[in-house]
Amino acid sequence: MSEQTVSIRTTGKVIQSPCGPIVHGLEDVLVKITSISDIDGRAGKLWYRGYRIEDLAENSTYEEVVYLLLYGKLPNVKELEDLKRRLAANRDLNPATIEVVRSLAKAHPMFALEAAVAAEGAFDEDNLKLAEALRAGRYKQEEKDLALKIAEKLVAKLPTIVAYHYRFSRGLEPVRPRADLSHSANFLYMFFGKEPDPLATRAIDLYLILHADHEIPASTFTALVIGATLSDLYSVIAGAIGALKGPLHGGANEAAVKSYLEIGDPAKTKDLVEAATKPGGPRLMGVGHRVYKAYDPRAKIFKKLVEDYTAKFGDPQKLYAIASGIEQAVLSHEYFQQRKLYPNVDFWSGIVFYYMGIPYDYFTPLFAMSRVVGWTAHVLEYWENNRLFRPRACYVGPHDQQYIPLNSRT
Amino acid sequence: MSEQTVSIRTTGKVIQSPCGPIVHGLEDVLVKITSISDIDGRAGKLWYRGYRIEDLAENSTYEEVVYLLLYGKLPNVKELEDLKRRLAANRDLNPATIEVVRSLAKAHPMFALEAAVAAEGAFDEDNLKLAEALRAGRYKQEEKDLALKIAEKLVAKLPTIVAYHYRFSRGLEPVRPRADLSHSANFLYMFFGKEPDPLATRAIDLYLILHADHEIPASTFTALVIGATLSDLYSVIAGAIGALKGPLHGGANEAAVKSYLEIGDPAKTKDLVEAATKPGGPRLMGVGHRVYKAYDPRAKIFKKLVEDYTAKFGDPQKLYAIASGIEQAVLSHEYFQQRKLYPNVDFWSGIVFYYMGIPYDYFTPLFAMSRVVGWTAHVLEYWENNRLFRPRACYVGPHDQQYIPLNSRT
Repeated sequence: MSEQTVSIRTTGKVIQSPCGPIVHGLEDVLVKITSISDIDGRAGKLWYRGYRIEDLAENSTYEEVVYLLLYGKLPNVKELEDLKRRLAANRDLNPATIEVVRSLAKAHPMFALEAAVAAEGAFDEDNLKLAEALRAGRYKQEEKDLALKIAEKLVAKLPTIVAYHYRFSRGLEPVRPRADLSHSANFLYMFFGKEPDPLATRAIDLYLILHADHEIPASTFTALVIGATLSDLYSVIAGAIGALKGPLHGGANEAAVKSYLEIGDPAKTKDLVEAATKPGGPRLMGVGHRVYKAYDPRAKIFKKLVEDYTAKFGDPQKLYAIASGIEQAVLSHEYFQQRKLYPNVDFWSGIVFYYMGIPYDYFTPLFAMSRVVGWTAHVLEYWENNRLFRPRACYVGPHDQQYIPLNSRT
Repeated sequence: MSEQTVSIRTTGKVIQSPCGPIVHGLEDVLVKITSISDIDGRAGKLWYRGYRIEDLAENSTYEEVVYLLLYGKLPNVKELEDLKRRLAANRDLNPATIEVVRSLAKAHPMFALEAAVAAEGAFDEDNLKLAEALRAGRYKQEEKDLALKIAEKLVAKLPTIVAYHYRFSRGLEPVRPRADLSHSANFLYMFFGKEPDPLATRAIDLYLILHADHEIPASTFTALVIGATLSDLYSVIAGAIGALKGPLHGGANEAAVKSYLEIGDPAKTKDLVEAATKPGGPRLMGVGHRVYKAYDPRAKIFKKLVEDYTAKFGDPQKLYAIASGIEQAVLSHEYFQQRKLYPNVDFWSGIVFYYMGIPYDYFTPLFAMSRVVGWTAHVLEYWENNRLFRPRACYVGPHDQQYIPLNSRT
């Protein structure tokens, strides 16, 4: 094909190279058209398939959101019941995968999750069948249906991997999934081995709803790059989990809770926030967001949940009180107002996990349990008009170096 | 930062969207500056760190190439001996990883490799230490040295995972690595459980040299996207393996060998090639390359090896004879000349693996065993000036859909 020149807008850093300009980190560079989710960072708005996140958070369950993101519409009663039945039926893991999780009892759960997802992919006949069809260049209705079925299986299985890993890591026997429980209730049941409290279930469910998709962060981009090779959906998700593990991506809610514990006293928050505005001052965890230049809509929603949760179960470590103190001080301080820095969703979400007794290491696996639906939805959408990613590097090294035999090298 | 407009050249397809043009698959889009490898597709040339691939293939071992790609220079005798000692010392796997590989005996080896690499990463203290330093924003000499050490470990360990998986898959006990053997000899020793033939060792070594780096195909790009989140090097490699598995990326040498077996007779090749020029005719496997519009330099080199190998061990299935027949017919046919379609490295490499008795499923794992050094070298280079990948999608769906309660949906 002949060469053409394309004009690309970016707010990011541009590096000049002998081969032309490089948009560092591809900031703002468009890679696909989507109808999955949209963000208005300035207005602090988020939509899934055109539905406001506030409406979905208030009225829907995670299962409904899964249906919405994968199928493009909200399910009716029967469609939802069918989906719930399919999800419940797919929660079990292959025995070999369970052995992988058991072998990795002492590993950080994100490594175990990566490994277990790859393992499970090897045994899912549908996954192998779809990979074979894609290899042969087929992606018609039959294959699309198969891809959706596999996406649902991944949604169904991730909580089991996470919960089993937790059980093995504590020397406990795994608790098998229960088909009569919702996605979130069953997760807590498998994790803690007892019937979960309804508000705890709602907290997990709300967290899963709020994190289900968020356009194309690095993990979703990883999913797209792997997916575009027509590898397979489990490898796609394993790779995305590897990216989510990166501290520049996931993990901020853990840092936020740890900072609240360190602060220890709500009375200290005003001075702390003041100090954070000075050069060399402390960094406020969970404040500010790359995209949101207004209050992160997910943070607003989850804050209310944290309030309800601590009202019901108490706030023994004063985490909610401390976070609220920081929030107050941040919102009323000129420094943060001018820079449009607001608490983001990570500012609040870790508090509830902490009080539930979920260890820090399992915070990011919970993120993966939610985002798995966004990752698969984006890959399925990309497959509708697939193209292998083929970027280039600009070579600036030497050419035709003289080869000196080993024994003559100094 | 303020918005700027950047002009990007591409020979790829450009999709128009309401948000601006999208270079489909980021074809030709520059993502980094490199001094690792360079390709001149028109001239059929490839350099690693400025050295011609022909010189390296003829005079070096894979260990030397590993040193060259990671450290930027060819090693002297002492540097090479030290590297060989370090590689040999790092071949063993963590017992938990061995259990993962054993649990996945019945899985396709690429899934097992993905899972095992993620598993091993959880137990490598250096890996966790580096990830922690990166999390804290440190990447100074100490961290760079640590990253190189981890890269070497990955190079050392991948053959062990592949060989152990093969052993387990056949119900055999694993054969532990032997420190007195070279990288390639030890791989064959662990795989087949006996002292390898020198020419077989040379074949593996040459294959590993020729595939060690190739600028930024999808697997290397996956490695960069994951690496830029500051995840960890094992997750980077696990993700890259997931991408290499894709039929649009790895796996072409398997298809080539299978096609030769199907043809079965060198006398048929001329007619077959003629037929391939007609609409609806058969596709010639391993002919043509995205980048090379001349004879793939790696193919030229490996062809000679196949010739030597079949001269020594015979050509019972006539694979070399058939491939040579196709090559002759392709090179002398106007159709292929005009389109600049030449045999690529995959055209030849599978033949030797086949004759060695390496099952098809292990062809792409061998590719991973080689490219692991390129993947890590590119990530280490990117970390020198790291930036999270943050592309965007153009949202074209609806907004503010009216939320209808579940029971009212039709």
